[in-house]
Amino acid sequence: MTTTSQRLKDLGIELPVPAAAVANYVPFVISGTLVFVSGQLPLQNGKLMVAGKLGDSVSVEDGTEAARLCGLNLLAQARAAAGGDIDRVRRLVRLTAFVACTADFTDQPKVINGASDLMVAVLGEAGRHARAAVGAPSLPLNAAVEIEAIFELV
Amino acid sequence: MTTTSQRLKDLGIELPVPAAAVANYVPFVISGTLVFVSGQLPLQNGKLMVAGKLGDSVSVEDGTEAARLCGLNLLAQARAAAGGDIDRVRRLVRLTAFVACTADFTDQPKVINGASDLMVAVLGEAGRHARAAVGAPSLPLNAAVEIEAIFELV
Amino acid sequence: MTTTSQRLKDLGIELPVPAAAVANYVPFVISGTLVFVSGQLPLQNGKLMVAGKLGDSVSVEDGTEAARLCGLNLLAQARAAAGGDIDRVRRLVRLTAFVACTADFTDQPKVINGASDLMVAVLGEAGRHARAAVGAPSLPLNAAVEIEAIFELV
Repeated sequence: MTTTSQRLKDLGIELPVPAAAVANYVPFVISGTLVFVSGQLPLQNGKLMVAGKLGDSVSVEDGTEAARLCGLNLLAQARAAAGGDIDRVRRLVRLTAFVACTADFTDQPKVINGASDLMVAVLGEAGRHARAAVGAPSLPLNAAVEIEAIFELV
Repeated sequence: MTTTSQRLKDLGIELPVPAAAVANYVPFVISGTLVFVSGQLPLQNGKLMVAGKLGDSVSVEDGTEAARLCGLNLLAQARAAAGGDIDRVRRLVRLTAFVACTADFTDQPKVINGASDLMVAVLGEAGRHARAAVGAPSLPLNAAVEIEAIFELV
Repeated sequence: MTTTSQRLKDLGIELPVPAAAVANYVPFVISGTLVFVSGQLPLQNGKLMVAGKLGDSVSVEDGTEAARLCGLNLLAQARAAAGGDIDRVRRLVRLTAFVACTADFTDQPKVINGASDLMVAVLGEAGRHARAAVGAPSLPLNAAVEIEAIFELV
C-alpha cells in the first residue's frame, strides 16, 4: 500500500516549513485523535502569493492555486502535529474554506477544489473530506483564500 | 419514548436521497462518534430552490425555507452516515450557518431558525444544538443559505 | 500552579452570567470531552456593546474590545458547561471568528487578538488555541464580531 510520504515523493511535493504562531494562538491543537489546524493563507516562504478577490482581480485559476497553497500549509501543520511523520496522519476530516470574493461570485467550489484535489493526491482515499466553501468580503492580509482543517491522527 | 423515525412519520417528512459527492470531497466523514457533514445547500431533487441574497431579492420567509431545506439535506446525510437508520443519530451537536446577504441585513438568526426548528421537530431534545449564524457576500451556485453540521452517532 | 479561577481573581475579571438560549438552539453542547459553544456576540448584560463594521464606523480598538467581550461570553458558557467550575475547563481548542467589515478591511487578526489575548490571560498556556479569523458582510443584530469556540473539559 502506498504511504503518504511515498505519495509526496512521487508527486515531487516538498511540504513547506510550517508557519509559527504569531500571537496568542497556535498553528494547531490536538484533542484526542483530532488535530484542529488554524486557518491557513496562500503563503509561500512567508510571502502572500495570491491577494485580492475572486470576481474582481483574481481569476478562478489563481484562486485555485491559492487554495492549493493553503492546502500545502495545512498538510505542513498536520505533519508537525504528527511529530514530523506525515504517515501518522490517518485522515483529513473536514475543510472549512473561505473565498474572498465579490457579491456576484458563485464559483467557490471550483476554487476550493485546488485544496481538495491536493488532499486526495497526497493522502489518497484518506484525503476525502467533508467540506464547506463560502464567500467572505475580505480576509486577513487581503488573501484570496483561507482554509481551516480538522485531521485525524493514528 | 418517541423515536426520530416515528417523529419523521408523524410530521409527514420523507428525507431526501442524500446528494453524492461531486468532487474530491465527500458528503460526510465519521471520526469516533462524530459525523462531520459537508455544507448543504437548499437543493431539492438536485435543483437549487432558493437563490439570491437576503436583504435583496430573497425574503426572510424564503430564506427560512432555504434553511429548512438545508436542514433536510443535513438529516439525509446524517441518516446515511448512520447506515440508513436515523435512530442511530444520537444528537445534533452544532450547526454553522452562512446566509448570503447584503451588508445591512442582520436577521441571520431568524433565517437559520428554519433549520434549527426542523432539527428539534425531527430529533426532539436531541435536536437542540450549538449554533453560529453569520452573513456571507455570496455562496456556491448563488444559494441563499449554506449550513454545515456535526452530529453524534450512537 | 496557578488555576484559572485564581487568574480570573488576579485579573479582576468576573465572568458574565451566560446568556440563555433564545430559540431551538442552545449555548453549548458537550460531546465526549469537547464543548461546542454557540457563536457569541459582544453583549454585556444583554445589550450589544459594539455595533457596525470594521473599515467603516468601528475602529480596530473598538473591534478588539468587541472580540474581548465575545471571549468573556465564551468563557462564561464554558464555565457553565463545566458545571460552574472554570477549573474543569482543560483547554481552549479552537476559535472561529467572524468580523463584520467592509471589502477593503484586512486586519481581522488584530481585531480577534482581543479574544485570543483574553483566553491566554485567563486560561494560561491552556488558552493557546487554533484559530480562524475571517470577514463577514454583516452579523446578527449588526454586531461587529461573532466568535464560536470549542473547549475541552477535564
